[in-house]
This record gives sequence, structure tokens and C-alpha cells, in this order.
Amino acid sequence: MSGSRRANVLGLGLIGGSIARALSERGWHVSGDDRDDGRAATAQERGYIAALGVDPTAEITFVATPVLTVADQVKRALGETSGLVTDVGSVKAAVVGAVDDPRFVGGHPMAGSELEGLDGADATMFEGAVWVLTPSASTADETFSAVAAVVVELGADVVALPADRHDQTVAVISHVPHLTAATLMGLASERAEEHAALLRLAAGGFRDMTRIASGQPNIWLDICAENRPAILSALDGLIAGLSAMRDVVDHDDRGELLRRLARARDARANLPVRGTQPGELAEVRIPIPDRPGAAAEVFTLAAELGVNIASFEVVHSVEGNRGVAVVLVDAKVVELYRGGLMARGYRPAVQRLS
Amino acid sequence: MSGSRRANVLGLGLIGGSIARALSERGWHVSGDDRDDGRAATAQERGYIAALGVDPTAEITFVATPVLTVADQVKRALGETSGLVTDVGSVKAAVVGAVDDPRFVGGHPMAGSELEGLDGADATMFEGAVWVLTPSASTADETFSAVAAVVVELGADVVALPADRHDQTVAVISHVPHLTAATLMGLASERAEEHAALLRLAAGGFRDMTRIASGQPNIWLDICAENRPAILSALDGLIAGLSAMRDVVDHDDRGELLRRLARARDARANLPVRGTQPGELAEVRIPIPDRPGAAAEVFTLAAELGVNIASFEVVHSVEGNRGVAVVLVDAKVVELYRGGLMARGYRPAVQRLS
Repeated sequence: MSGSRRANVLGLGLIGGSIARALSERGWHVSGDDRDDGRAATAQERGYIAALGVDPTAEITFVATPVLTVADQVKRALGETSGLVTDVGSVKAAVVGAVDDPRFVGGHPMAGSELEGLDGADATMFEGAVWVLTPSASTADETFSAVAAVVVELGADVVALPADRHDQTVAVISHVPHLTAATLMGLASERAEEHAALLRLAAGGFRDMTRIASGQPNIWLDICAENRPAILSALDGLIAGLSAMRDVVDHDDRGELLRRLARARDARANLPVRGTQPGELAEVRIPIPDRPGAAAEVFTLAAELGVNIASFEVVHSVEGNRGVAVVLVDAKVVELYRGGLMARGYRPAVQRLS
Repeated sequence: MSGSRRANVLGLGLIGGSIARALSERGWHVSGDDRDDGRAATAQERGYIAALGVDPTAEITFVATPVLTVADQVKRALGETSGLVTDVGSVKAAVVGAVDDPRFVGGHPMAGSELEGLDGADATMFEGAVWVLTPSASTADETFSAVAAVVVELGADVVALPADRHDQTVAVISHVPHLTAATLMGLASERAEEHAALLRLAAGGFRDMTRIASGQPNIWLDICAENRPAILSALDGLIAGLSAMRDVVDHDDRGELLRRLARARDARANLPVRGTQPGELAEVRIPIPDRPGAAAEVFTLAAELGVNIASFEVVHSVEGNRGVAVVLVDAKVVELYRGGLMARGYRPAVQRLS
């Protein structure tokens, strides 16, 4: 396997197993371990990893262990390898705050499966999925660029966000919806004790809404503990929204009810579609100035502006050894992006591709 | 078409169109109309109905018009035909309270589609679905039995419930989940105004949870108006449940959080599966005594006890002209059902089928 690029995957559950499998299928030499030795052995038997343990020469280590252990495993990987380190935990501010190293960037692939553990490992899991990276002030530009490039190799779209912004977002988009599905299911189940037919009436809509309540309860304990403030804030927002909805129904305010339902319907219809190809592309070449975090900021700004980055690489310009970020975006939004970059002090050059 | 059984379908939207199509494909002669003449003409062109207008000789009329017009259309059908009348509205107590006729029984098929109107009409829509019937004190036994038999012919499972019980149930299982999906979508959309990347992070769970928010807003205005007390009660239950969940997260009460999530997960896993075949069947023969509502009560009691009726017919016993309900249920629950029937004064005879 000499000549192969080398990676570690620590934690071989659903996400770690999928990363290991995807990298191995792309010709990487993957090492890995798991707190469950049997699971690590199974991953090796199936060819998801080539070797057990931590490869000190790996260029990148993915930490995919349970949320509460991520910070320690990241530190372990930084100590035992000379390469870059990233993680896939569902909550980011705590781990990013606990690790201060230029070789680390936090991450969170927005993908999953109804299957659990190694048996759900799927090399195509990340294709077309959003994969958040959360660079901090201590993350080196090269770390961000290199980790982003591997994530793109796995088929995902990189969205760069500050860690606290990520945590607020997933509270609204994932954590509170999960708690709500569980609460709705609990309410229905309670009422069903009075009348057994209740749950027989549950049609497709109710099944869709409560599907995420069928996930492993244990991981949610850690998520709720790690992301408590953002979850409480989003829960407060939801409770206030439901109380307002209650008043609208109570007062038979049809105009306001229609406005709320129509707004929700429009927002649902406009949810970004996974894996759609943009139309005409434009290439934006952005010299990366000599200041920390610039490469990450190029990405983070795109996310802030709602600009989807179709592809990304860092090349070295002929004039010197500073990098140039070469970013492809939809031509329709390239002027928006260019304006934002200039406002932040970058000097982008745009070329439309035919 | 002489010799065909004859039906009317008033209102040819998604549900009415599906009923008309399913009956026509089964050889019925179906007449129908719609407040939109063009839609009625299209239904005829496509062969979903054989004739426009109301057939006064139809043995059954399905009223499938918008919720607020159902009671008037039911009265019209009772006046213009000599047959039985049922409806498919999502809220039942109002219409059942407004119509006092032995030839009427309220109904509500728990089925639908993401498609809208006649274009979504699907003859197989009701196969394996639950179809609620809500007999009242004025519904004749023969009406209930005959309508139930047609519903079974369309492939649905009949569940009999009192109208108010139906309305409380769908508030929990359908109406409040819809309002919740809209509120969650609204919250996410509001927060997305601060940061465009938020909605890009919406993965499968959020999409599942908000799918029902993509329905037609207009029908929900009527549903909320007609089922207001039950919806307010269920919303209050949900808000109380979310507030309790908030406290559990706030106090990091892992034991209670695990208990709530595990209970929801178990309840989700135990949702009745549509269209599953029961195991060994048992036949229960129940002489229908000479009192109004007895045939309906046989069904309603099964729903109360959580007993799924696999098949149902009313035959005439040799001793007289009173009917005998012949009901097939899963053999595992036949003793439960028999006990309930005896407690209500019936004299059931049970025979296990091999």
C-alpha cells in the first residue's frame, strides 16, 4: 500500500464506518480503532479499514466517537500523529473551544441513516450531503483547505460556519425537531391509553413527523447536555410559536392562520434540494492574504451569503508562495459573492465558464 | 350498464376522485358532480365517473366536498336519492350533529397523497388504509353495515368511532402535527433570515418532519374552525409536553430525558403497520339484537379494545329476520373481544379457523 494516502478513523460507528469505507474505496490506506474491539475487528474484516490502531503518519484523522469523548480523542490524535485532525460530532462549540491547535478543524456531516452502527456504514452516505466545517481563529488556513478537499472527495458540499452558529442552527434544524417528534409521539401514546384505536389512525403524515423519534435515545442525552443553551433558545421559540398558533386558532383568525400556513408551505417548497447541479458556473480566484483564517473566511462568507460552492481548491500563484483559492459558484450569484469578498478586503477575480 | 351497482360521488377532488375511480374500476356505475364543472367533465372523460349529476337510484352517495359544505351536501343527497349517504370530511362531530337520518353515517378515510385534486386520484389509495365510520344514535344498523361493506370493497379497514372521539383523535394524530410542522418550518425560516446557510443544513429528519407543511393551506382553515376545541386541547397538551421537555433539558435530568425518548421510540416502533395480515384468524358470530346501533357498536367496541377487524359481513340467521354479524379477528385477541361483547350484552359464538 506504499504510495497510498493515509488516514485514521477513530470510532467506527455509522458515520466513522462510512468515512472509513468511503476512503478505502477511493484507494486510501485507512487505520482505525473503536472502544469496542470486536467492532474494529469487523471493520477490518470487511475491508473498511486496512489496519487496527492509530497510524502516526496519517495525513488526516477523523474522530467519530460519541460527542462527550470527542475533545479527548482529538487531543489524542493531535499527540499521536503529525497530520491534520477533524471530528464529526453533532455539537461543535465545546470541542472547538477545548482544542487550540492549528492542525485541527471541527466538522459535522449532515447525513445519517435509519440503520445503526457499522452495519449501516455506506460509502455513498456523504454524496450530495452538506458537511459543515467550523474553523476557529487557531485553525491554520492549510488545515481548513486540506480537510475541505478531503470532504469534497467524499462527495459532500462544504459549508463553513463558526462553531456557535453551527450549534444554534442544528438546535433549530435537528435537535428541537427530534425533541418535538418525541413529545408528539409521547402525547399520542398517552392518549392512546384511553383509546386503543388512536394509533391505528396514524397515517403517513404522522409517521413522517415522528420518524426521527425512532433514533437511539442515548446519543441525544449527550447532544442535549452539550448544546443546552441553543436547544433551550430554540425550544422557547417553538413554544412561543405554538402558543401564538393556539391563539390564532382560538380566535378563528383565518387571515393570520392562512398567512402562517402559506409562509410555512413556501419555505418548505424552497428548502435547498440536495445534490442539485448549479446552472452556469463562474470561477472566482481569490488570493489568500497573509493573515490567519483567510481561507476559512472565504468559505464562511459564502455560507453567510447563501452562496453554494460547487468546487474548491487552493493553488500556488506564480508570484510567490501565497495560495490562491479557486472557487466555483453558480454564475447567478457570483456578483453577490464578489461584493462580499471585496467588502472583507479580498481581491477576487471572476471568470465565467461556458 | 344495467345490473351494475350504482353510486354517486359529490366532489371530485383527490379523495372523491379516488373513490369514483376505485368504484368504476370495480364495475360500479358512478355518477358525480363538482362545484367546478370543468373538473367534473375531466373526471367523466377519464372514465372515473360514467355520468354527470346525481343518480337518484344510487344505493350509496359519497360526499367528498370541502369540510364546511359537507352537511348541506349530505342533506341534498338524502333528499335527491333513496340510498345511503356517507361523507369523507376530516372533522365529524359537526356534520354528524347536523344530520339526523337513519340513512346517513359519517366517515373519514385516513389516506391522502402529496398530489392534489383530480390529478392525484388513485384507485388504490384506500388499500390497507384505515377508514373511520362514525355511526350516531340515528344511524340504522343496515346503513352502517352496508357502508362498511363498500368501504371494505375499496380495500380499507373500517374502524368505528363516535364522532367526538374521532375528532379528538385526529386533532392529536393529524391536525396538531400539521400546525407543529408549520410552526417549526416558520421558526427555521425566520432564523434563516439571519443566516442563509441554516436551511442548507436541513437533512432528512427535518424534511420528514416538515413534509406535511407542504399541504394546501386552505383546507386547514376549515379544519381548524370545525375542530377548534379538540385542536386547542391537543395543542395545550403539546405545549405542556414541550415545556416539560425544556425543564428536563435545562436541569440536565438525563434519567428523565432517557425515559421520555425511550418511551417515544418504543411507541413509534409499535405504531400499527398498515396492511399487515393478522396471524391465525378466529370467526366471531354475533346475533344483532333488536336495538338501534347494535351493528355499529360491535365495530366501535373492537376499536375501543384495539381489536382489528379483518373482515365483516352481516348475514341473516335461519331463525328469523334479525341479522348476524360475522366478524373475523386475529385469534390472539378473540377472547378479549368476546369478553367485551358479553359485557355489553351480546352473545357471541367463536370459532377458530385453521
